[in-house]
Amino acid sequence: MIGVFDSGVGGLTVLKALAAELPAEHFLYLGDTARLPYGTKSAETVVRYALQATEALCERGIECLVIACNTASAVSLPALRERILDVPVIGVIEPGAEAACAASHSGRIAVLATEGTVRGGAYQEAILRRRAGAKVTALAAPLFVALAEEGLSEGPIAETIAHHYLDPLLAAPHGPPDTLVLGCTHFPMLARAIRGATGPEVCIVDSAQTTARHVRRTLEDAGLAARAGEGSLRLLATDAPQRFARIGSRFLERRIEPDEVELIDL
Amino acid sequence: MIGVFDSGVGGLTVLKALAAELPAEHFLYLGDTARLPYGTKSAETVVRYALQATEALCERGIECLVIACNTASAVSLPALRERILDVPVIGVIEPGAEAACAASHSGRIAVLATEGTVRGGAYQEAILRRRAGAKVTALAAPLFVALAEEGLSEGPIAETIAHHYLDPLLAAPHGPPDTLVLGCTHFPMLARAIRGATGPEVCIVDSAQTTARHVRRTLEDAGLAARAGEGSLRLLATDAPQRFARIGSRFLERRIEPDEVELIDL
Repeated sequence: MIGVFDSGVGGLTVLKALAAELPAEHFLYLGDTARLPYGTKSAETVVRYALQATEALCERGIECLVIACNTASAVSLPALRERILDVPVIGVIEPGAEAACAASHSGRIAVLATEGTVRGGAYQEAILRRRAGAKVTALAAPLFVALAEEGLSEGPIAETIAHHYLDPLLAAPHGPPDTLVLGCTHFPMLARAIRGATGPEVCIVDSAQTTARHVRRTLEDAGLAARAGEGSLRLLATDAPQRFARIGSRFLERRIEPDEVELIDL
Repeated sequence: MIGVFDSGVGGLTVLKALAAELPAEHFLYLGDTARLPYGTKSAETVVRYALQATEALCERGIECLVIACNTASAVSLPALRERILDVPVIGVIEPGAEAACAASHSGRIAVLATEGTVRGGAYQEAILRRRAGAKVTALAAPLFVALAEEGLSEGPIAETIAHHYLDPLLAAPHGPPDTLVLGCTHFPMLARAIRGATGPEVCIVDSAQTTARHVRRTLEDAGLAARAGEGSLRLLATDAPQRFARIGSRFLERRIEPDEVELIDL
């Protein structure tokens, strides 16, 4: 069983990619809806929350842990790997950085993320480790989270806000980026508005796909992958299962019934 | 000393009104920034968080408690009053409802609030208790919170979003409201954009002012008010004091230094 952890429903975009890549796998998803969002909180607080969530997943017998939340990946991976010795822990930052470096010709890479992810600098570091001469610009785009949660991911409001964030990035004095990393699980929901603002030239990297491939390879290397039979999904949340089901259905692109979501206390 | 509790920095708009009404008073403000926002969380979770915050304030010797957060006022007042027997507990809903009923001629009153406040129905009940024939429409406007936190309270994005929420309210089939309650502490920051969408005819009620007057009367009735001398303010937060200071400065309309904000654990 693969554990997938996120601060809320955003990580369902990563879960969707994982289920497509590993259709026979059993998934246990936990959204920490009682304390979301993580993107505006301090690194210490996010690490504490992520450790509690991880313990809850480990108690339920996972064999691999995916941190779908960019903010939690950016600040808590070392602490989680120190605590969880017996299962591989995979975040979304390294696969996203890898994909961005592979896609970029000019080395000018932009990252849109939450405040916490930008402040932590994890994407910037992960990209520069792979490509020392890269020119990385990271920008917090918190309104995208609110838009995606409210189902306003298309239309004039989403387009205006996409231009608000992207126009200054594209007008950078050292030349526009040729690659844009969507460094928050909510942002793929706004892909159309973001594409409208960047134009067709910029390569948009969604780390969900790359992370899913990375998880498959990790499982294969550990001799855990390629089960036969049908996969399954169990959903856990720390608050408001009805809201999780309603908003999560958009992120997962299939209807989630409220009674599918099990309420747990961390 | 008056305790003021909010989920984050939004309650500083209420604190500002309180300090103007009671300039000689000592205030202890607590923002639960580790777990904000409350507006999307379940009533049970908000009650639990509010009780913990209230205990922390009572331990520090407050003589009166103001719940500045509309969501917490809407769902947790009875539980708080049951727990806190020795100090008066005042929320923002009842004063806001009172002001709306006094202002409205037609009895058609609209309330803009968070998801949690709308779902709880506290404004609707409080208005109908005072004016049985009132026609109350409550609408969740979560994007306003994100706009105010990001400092985008004026300009084309704020105006577009104000129209998005208000145009359907103003086109109500039974006639437009003549009174609009700003049922979230963040919304007074967007007053200009909201006024632009409503036009000049609609009376806009900000419960901060009415709550401040209500607190002064309560203190006078309890024989606690009208100190001489200079007032003071002490700020507590459960996470990210730097962010509290940066964003809170806009809400309080004076610069807050990061070292003015004391970090506490609930």
